Parts: sequence; C-alpha cells; structure tokens
Amino acid sequence: MSLKEIGEFGFIKKISRGCLIRPDTIVKAIGDDAAAFRSDPEQLTLMTTDLLVERIHFLRAAISGFDLGYKALAVNLSDIAAMGGTAREAFVSIAIPDDCQLDYLDDIYDGIKDLAAEFDINILGGDTTRSKIDLIINIVIQGIVPDKEILCRDAARPSDVICSTGFLGDSKAGLHLILNQIAADTQGLKSLLKAHNRPQPHLREGRFLARQPGVHAAIDTSDGLSSDLGHIAQESQAGARLYADKIPISPNLKDFCARFDFDPVKYALSGGEDYTLLCTIAFEHAEEIAHDFEKKFKRTLFAIGEITADKQFTLIYPDGKTKPITPTGWDHFKAK
Amino acid sequence: MSLKEIGEFGFIKKISRGCLIRPDTIVKAIGDDAAAFRSDPEQLTLMTTDLLVERIHFLRAAISGFDLGYKALAVNLSDIAAMGGTAREAFVSIAIPDDCQLDYLDDIYDGIKDLAAEFDINILGGDTTRSKIDLIINIVIQGIVPDKEILCRDAARPSDVICSTGFLGDSKAGLHLILNQIAADTQGLKSLLKAHNRPQPHLREGRFLARQPGVHAAIDTSDGLSSDLGHIAQESQAGARLYADKIPISPNLKDFCARFDFDPVKYALSGGEDYTLLCTIAFEHAEEIAHDFEKKFKRTLFAIGEITADKQFTLIYPDGKTKPITPTGWDHFKAK
Repeated sequence: MSLKEIGEFGFIKKISRGCLIRPDTIVKAIGDDAAAFRSDPEQLTLMTTDLLVERIHFLRAAISGFDLGYKALAVNLSDIAAMGGTAREAFVSIAIPDDCQLDYLDDIYDGIKDLAAEFDINILGGDTTRSKIDLIINIVIQGIVPDKEILCRDAARPSDVICSTGFLGDSKAGLHLILNQIAADTQGLKSLLKAHNRPQPHLREGRFLARQPGVHAAIDTSDGLSSDLGHIAQESQAGARLYADKIPISPNLKDFCARFDFDPVKYALSGGEDYTLLCTIAFEHAEEIAHDFEKKFKRTLFAIGEITADKQFTLIYPDGKTKPITPTGWDHFKAK
Repeated sequence: MSLKEIGEFGFIKKISRGCLIRPDTIVKAIGDDAAAFRSDPEQLTLMTTDLLVERIHFLRAAISGFDLGYKALAVNLSDIAAMGGTAREAFVSIAIPDDCQLDYLDDIYDGIKDLAAEFDINILGGDTTRSKIDLIINIVIQGIVPDKEILCRDAARPSDVICSTGFLGDSKAGLHLILNQIAADTQGLKSLLKAHNRPQPHLREGRFLARQPGVHAAIDTSDGLSSDLGHIAQESQAGARLYADKIPISPNLKDFCARFDFDPVKYALSGGEDYTLLCTIAFEHAEEIAHDFEKKFKRTLFAIGEITADKQFTLIYPDGKTKPITPTGWDHFKAK
C-alpha cells in the first residue's frame, strides 16, 4: 500500500495508533486543530505546529521574506484561534539552504516578530540548521484556554447555525495569480494576493466566540470550506446544509471570478488558506452572537448554513435546487 | 554579511533580538537546551524542538526507519534531560518526499513510539505534509521540572567538578563508519554504530542530578565535549580545565582509534551526538553524588575536570603539559 493510496488522513489515522499511552490529563490528542491537555485545574494548554516546505507550501521567488515569516506564524495562530485559545509562546525552527541570503532570513524573522508583537507572543526558542535545497520553516505555538471554553471539531449539534468569521476564496484567488504569474495590476487583485500572502489569524474572534454560550464547534479554514466543514460534520457525526447565496464572497473575489471566468461559489467552497473560523452556534443564540460580533469587530459573522442530523452534505441554491457537496480540500498525499 | 561569516551562533544572536516581549513568566528563552516558563507556582514548563533534514543530519540509505525515528525523539529528550526535567508530550511533524515508502514511514513511527513508551511520553499531534526531495522530521517536546531543580548552562561556579554521565566520542566513530562505508564487522564497531544511530537520552540521570544538592549547571553533549562545555563556561562567565586521562573513552572507541589511527582524546573532545549529560557539581558534593549515581545506575559518573575562575579553557596531560582547547563542535553554517 502506498502513501498516495491511503492519503494524508489515512496516514494520520495509521500513525495515531499507540500514540496516547498516558491519557489521564489529555483532552484532545491528534485530530483537532491543536492538542489540548490539562495544565491546571481550570486551564488547558494548547499546542500546535506547522511545517512549511519550499516548493510545496511556498515559492521563495514569489513571496517576500517578511510575508513568508508572517504567514508561517499566522497559520499556526489560526489553529489556536480555532480552539478558542490565547496564543502565548512560539518556537521557530528553520533549515536554510546555502543560496538563501541573510537579508531574506532577516525579513522572515521581521515578519514573524511583527505578527508575534501584535498578539503579545514571545518567541522562546527553536532550532537553526542547514538544508541542501529547500528552505524549511517549522513553527510551534503553545497557548492556553479556559477548560470550559475550548472549541473542538466534534461538538456540532443538529440545527446549529454554521458561521464564518470572514470571506472565503480570496486566498485561493491570490494563489491563482502567483501560480499563473498574473500581475496584480488593480487594488482588488492586490488585496487577493495579500489575503494569500499575509492571512490574518482570527485569534480575537476565536476568543470572543469561545466565551459565548451556544457556540459549539469550530475549525479554521485552512484546507477549504468544504473540506474543513466536512471535518466538523464527520467528527460530530452529523451532516451540513450550505446555502449557495449565503457563502461570503468578497467584492474582490466577485470581480476576479468575473474577469477570469470562475464560479465564485465553487471557488469559495474549494479554496483553502483563508484562515477564517468556521463555527457552529445553537440556533437560539446565533442572531444575538452575530449582532455582538458585528458590534465588536465591525465585520459580519456570516451565517452560511445549518448542521443536520442526517449525514448528508448538501449545497442549496436560491431556486431550491440541491447538490451534494464532496469535500475537495487539500490532501497532501493523494494522487490528484 | 553572509550566513557563513556570522555562523550559527551569530545568527541565533541576531534573530534573538526582540523575541521576548512578555518576559514576566519566562525563566529561559533562546540560549539553553530548552525554553522554560512558569506554568504553576512551583513548576516550570520546558519546551524544546529539533529539525532533522535528510542529507544534513542523516542519510536515508544509511539508517533504518526505526533508528531514524528513535534518534529523532532521543535528541529532543536529551535536551529535556539536560534541564533536569521530565518529558511529557511529543509532537511529530514530517515532510515526506514521493520516493519515501510507507514501510519506511511506519518504521520511523515505530522507532518514535518505542522510545516514547519507555519514557511514558504521549504523542499528541504534529503535522504531515509533502516534500520535493528530502525527508524532514521535526519533533517538539513539552516537559516539566520543579522550579528549584532546573539545571541551566549558566550556573557553573569556579571549583565545580565537571562530570559526564557516559563515554564520549563513540557516536562520532559510528558516523565515521557510515561516511566511509566501513562494514561494522566486529561487536565493537557494531556498538559504535549503535551509539550513533540509537543514542540513549539520559532523562533518568538528569532527574537524579537535578534533585541533588550541589549540582549547578548541565548541558547535553550534542555538539561535542569541547563545544558543549564551552557553552557552559561562556554562559557561566568562567573557564574550564580538563584532564586528558580522565576523559571517558570506551573500550570500543580505544580499539577503533587503534585500528584507524586516531587520537582517542581528540576524538572524544570533538565528537558530537553522544547525548550524555555534562554537569558541574560543587566540589564538596561531587564524590558522594558520584557514589550514589554509580549505585543507582550501575555506571560511572566520570569526573573529568574543574570549572575555573579565569576564562581559560585548558587540557592537562598526565605529564603536566597543558594545551589550550578551542571549541571545535558543530556549527551548521560556518565554512569549514
């Protein structure tokens, strides 16, 4: 059996066996956005880590050092945000090929430090080493969350309202510009490029949601709406219904899709790396929370669908037509 | 200025600026074997991480998957041992090139799990992704240590006895066999190879030492005796005197050096990756601690020299001749 056959999630399932040998203090092990374990009677420690490899996750020629560092930290912070936590300490490891300039490395650390300062995060250590060809960055984040406020993937309940803390699909459009070497010649395209290169971790939004009664499950949109919501549905043993006309498409993405002839709904469904939070909220609390969210963040908390008791995953169009959704998010290993 | 000019330690110094923005709970940031921060009134959290890159740290053809996984975890546990701590949770990230077989990956995780089980460590998460060419493994360890027992690099005092918890140089000899494709055709050579491929983290020894009154500083021998002791001396603003005839050379290394015409003392001084602990002990406690160590571990705690008030770093031969020691351990970036 090969890695391509079992895929990333098959591989993770395989390696997860026998990993938990002292389960007494563990709340979440492999399988959520971050691991969670008890550090004191009322608080949990959160830990998450992401490994970024050149030519897989980024092209050095296509991203500034500053953006690369910023993004490497942002994707990790987003995992803490998705658990409802506060990020505290960061550890940065880097493997550097000979052709990587010191200026570029300085810019990477400037990008990391810039975002770390915004969220009051210390950089406490890491590892520095060489690499033969590819630049490699691994960041680890330690965070905390009050025991009773942790948000997990497996806590969605039927009739919960599914919400997103931001627009979806912008980052994928930015990636399209990079991969097809299309110049970002308008303010709109520049914004899409920035959505891809400098994603904003929704840590404050995650803390806000974690404190509200009725917010059940959460995940960040790293792999794409269909895939990430698929994780929530699967882990919660439920289904989901999404309304095509409620999926939040930014004006920039609308222009982009019109110009390059893409379907914006499909784009938002399959696009990854937006790093908004998807959460599910008990129906009776959803409206008030959305109201308070808008008041606090001056942005909309988009209600895009509902969790269902059946395990179907369906897209509903304004004319009433329905279409099954197949999670199409990112699997690093499966043959495409 | 290039990376080769400033070297690994120059680079670390450069990137360390501006990393600590919330210092209130931090005991050790960048610059010791692990970071340490307060998690409750009497206990510190320890965090360490190591990034292993194919063709820099290992050759896939020359090490079994099991040994690679075992060693990747061992080198991290050794950092926790050097702080006097107990390892608790592990996070394993891996970037896998297409030509890496599933069997080899299974073996890596078997090696990790084997050592994790021995020290009661959970594997709680990580990241799995692809790589273009090189296999990359990053492991993070979270551990704990009682506040009053932490062992740091900067706590050595003049007249402290310098001790090693094991033989030095064996691992370098094992590496010599691998790099020169010399068959390990005797039991002795096999042992040297094993010292390189499956190092034993001295976690129990570290905890024992941390609990003894009079044990001041500690570090693990990852870069080599001269370099690692150099770190202790430098951080403690002191010097060190080593006795050539007291440096612990295993019978296997003696045979190896005789056969391949190496000076065993030089070998032990410059060899890295032994992962014994170097510690410094107040003179009046050293003998009793060595006695108790031997009783507990059925092995010798080797006394190899003393910390000095002057900042000299000297090797003393049995005939009284002295030679200055220049730390010759591993710097990943400096041109050799």
